[in-house]
Amino acid sequence: MFFKKLLRIKEAWKIIRSILEGKKLPTEKIEIDQALGRYIAEDLKSNVDIPTYDKSAVDGFAVRSAELTGASLYNPALLKIIGKSTIGSHSELTISEGEAIKIDTGAPLPKGADAVVELESCSVLGEYVEITKRVAPFTNVIRKGEDVKKGEVIMEKGSKIEPWHIALLKGVGIEEINVYIPPRVALISTGSELSSSWKEGKMVDTNKPNFKNLLKLLSINALDMGIVKDDRGDIRKVLEKACEVADIIVTTGGVSVGERDYTIKVLEEMGEIYLHGVAVRPGMPFAFARIGDVLVFALPGNPVAAYVDYKLFVELSILQLYNAKLQAIPVIAKLEYKVPSSLGFKELIRVKLIKREDVIYAVPVRRRGSSILSSITRSDGVIAIPEDCEGMPGGTVVKVYLHTQPWTGIIEE
Amino acid sequence: MFFKKLLRIKEAWKIIRSILEGKKLPTEKIEIDQALGRYIAEDLKSNVDIPTYDKSAVDGFAVRSAELTGASLYNPALLKIIGKSTIGSHSELTISEGEAIKIDTGAPLPKGADAVVELESCSVLGEYVEITKRVAPFTNVIRKGEDVKKGEVIMEKGSKIEPWHIALLKGVGIEEINVYIPPRVALISTGSELSSSWKEGKMVDTNKPNFKNLLKLLSINALDMGIVKDDRGDIRKVLEKACEVADIIVTTGGVSVGERDYTIKVLEEMGEIYLHGVAVRPGMPFAFARIGDVLVFALPGNPVAAYVDYKLFVELSILQLYNAKLQAIPVIAKLEYKVPSSLGFKELIRVKLIKREDVIYAVPVRRRGSSILSSITRSDGVIAIPEDCEGMPGGTVVKVYLHTQPWTGIIEE
Repeated sequence: MFFKKLLRIKEAWKIIRSILEGKKLPTEKIEIDQALGRYIAEDLKSNVDIPTYDKSAVDGFAVRSAELTGASLYNPALLKIIGKSTIGSHSELTISEGEAIKIDTGAPLPKGADAVVELESCSVLGEYVEITKRVAPFTNVIRKGEDVKKGEVIMEKGSKIEPWHIALLKGVGIEEINVYIPPRVALISTGSELSSSWKEGKMVDTNKPNFKNLLKLLSINALDMGIVKDDRGDIRKVLEKACEVADIIVTTGGVSVGERDYTIKVLEEMGEIYLHGVAVRPGMPFAFARIGDVLVFALPGNPVAAYVDYKLFVELSILQLYNAKLQAIPVIAKLEYKVPSSLGFKELIRVKLIKREDVIYAVPVRRRGSSILSSITRSDGVIAIPEDCEGMPGGTVVKVYLHTQPWTGIIEE
Repeated sequence: MFFKKLLRIKEAWKIIRSILEGKKLPTEKIEIDQALGRYIAEDLKSNVDIPTYDKSAVDGFAVRSAELTGASLYNPALLKIIGKSTIGSHSELTISEGEAIKIDTGAPLPKGADAVVELESCSVLGEYVEITKRVAPFTNVIRKGEDVKKGEVIMEKGSKIEPWHIALLKGVGIEEINVYIPPRVALISTGSELSSSWKEGKMVDTNKPNFKNLLKLLSINALDMGIVKDDRGDIRKVLEKACEVADIIVTTGGVSVGERDYTIKVLEEMGEIYLHGVAVRPGMPFAFARIGDVLVFALPGNPVAAYVDYKLFVELSILQLYNAKLQAIPVIAKLEYKVPSSLGFKELIRVKLIKREDVIYAVPVRRRGSSILSSITRSDGVIAIPEDCEGMPGGTVVKVYLHTQPWTGIIEE
């Protein structure tokens, strides 16, 4: 058995995307207080104007600006104070010619007034206020609807809900929203050498804790299907079980072209394999398949390779199901020293970011095998060396994709 | 009452930092599976080597490299196959002169062997294997300790625990770690016009939901002390109550220099005010105080000003208490069009990032008053215009500090 053809990341994504397009996540209505980190399933419009009325941005006097056109230090305007507008008040005060109303910051602008003169430019003389400057209409006024207009879309479908969104939504009176129900993701680790915790002579399965926690950041509580020995029958059984409870299955191990690579063999029997082998390093032995309606991401067992494929394919697929708005905004840095790369592969080099004298450097991590998990913990992100390069010289300006952000940019490159 | 002197952000930070240095958060031991997003309170060292033994990186034959120095296509070396090393096996096989052992990827390197020749370069002839190339010592071998060395620090105190850390820690057998116990933070909103949810004629207090959710991202469940009217006695009462249950109090409103700015007046009575007024826009009316042992961050009521002060002072203070390792790695972008700024103030302009033809532009948000909460939801981050600038022309290369990341860079600038 051989890899028939290594697909480029871009081609692999075209195939995955076409399958994802047929999928639609169900939605649910939840309280906005519980919505942090979820993805919104509809465009949200405001039913109100914010602010709901014109209000003053300063402490001062509400005036009719047209009456101050001639006002100056030598020719002050004299207006009669007919009342006060305070915060929280909703008096029916109206000003007419020659009148002004004292107004607090945030208080509603009285009818008839169209501007506010700040206290510093006013002198109060008994029942009158003397104003020594002219003001344009709506000076020091926060207009009704200036923050949010009634009917305006304030959050687009697919937006991730951040703290400030919750604030704004509460501000316009939206207390419940429709969000996507996260897909059910089952994790299966294959490998006779694996143990879920430290044991002499065994290897700890680090992929599962890594993916479990990465999935938490996407609001997903993954289903742990355990560790399976390198046994055809056992692997088939656990995949069958996973298909009953999950929308997405993520396996690790057994996906290369060796005799004992049973995962890929069982997937071939049980479902349809859409791609096997991607021209990326680490992460080359990756397969994407479907069993019935269940999507299967079959990742290699080596922790770095598995992580790379998770970031490139699993995470971005789930974000696509959430209709997430993603922008590829990498950190721009200077490569500290040259790195070699294999022709024909997109090579992902783990780099640490270091700032020296206002220049940001990307320092490649030295120990970098696909089993070297510490190459991730010692780095801030990756750079992607294109397929047609044999490496990059030191000093090259590179784009760094952070571990803490989606790697959209890499699949677009 | 006036602001005596506006401090620059940097000076304000010097004062805050000196107070924070006297504070030490307690720590607790927790299971690594529950540790996502927490901050580690000690340097963590590995008690083991990973991998724990030399192992093969490929399927092939384990050999003594010295015996292959003369091997070539025309002069192959012939070695006797004396056994097999499989994954998970721990046989006591040893190879001697003229011998080889079949070995699987990931299987332990037998004693006596120091390299592995990949299957593709081997021909099996009955009990013998013919090898047609020489190999350097440790070719295709993943060395013991290559990923993590025994005694090596694998996570430094103050690191935020990300999914890949959990994976690595589990990999070396660490199942429990010491983390900082998050400080208890009490939130108080002041303002007679405020309501916790939408009500005609009232204004929704958007600061509290914003901060509550921002604090969740720092593993803090904030204590909600409610909304307090602009009343000196009420404010005093709630502050006294908060002092009993919190390490940090965050208030909004009543911190400017007007008559009705009661929060600052009550703080003056109850404790010590270290600074009042910072040369930043929005966010100028900010005070930092202490009542007994409790730190008080008194923020303005306007949602954008409050948010800016939260990001600049509250968030970074809590991260400092966590001893967080923070790097100021901004996104570099091109300013889309010119923005004005007030001399003497550090002006924070909300910008949206847009990528066009591989150039990243920072597009200033047009509606930008300090009450315009939508200027945050419509932007990705802020740029900081220095105190001695009257603005920035379009095309300027700017640093963008994202809403989703700490703004360390701004306080260092």
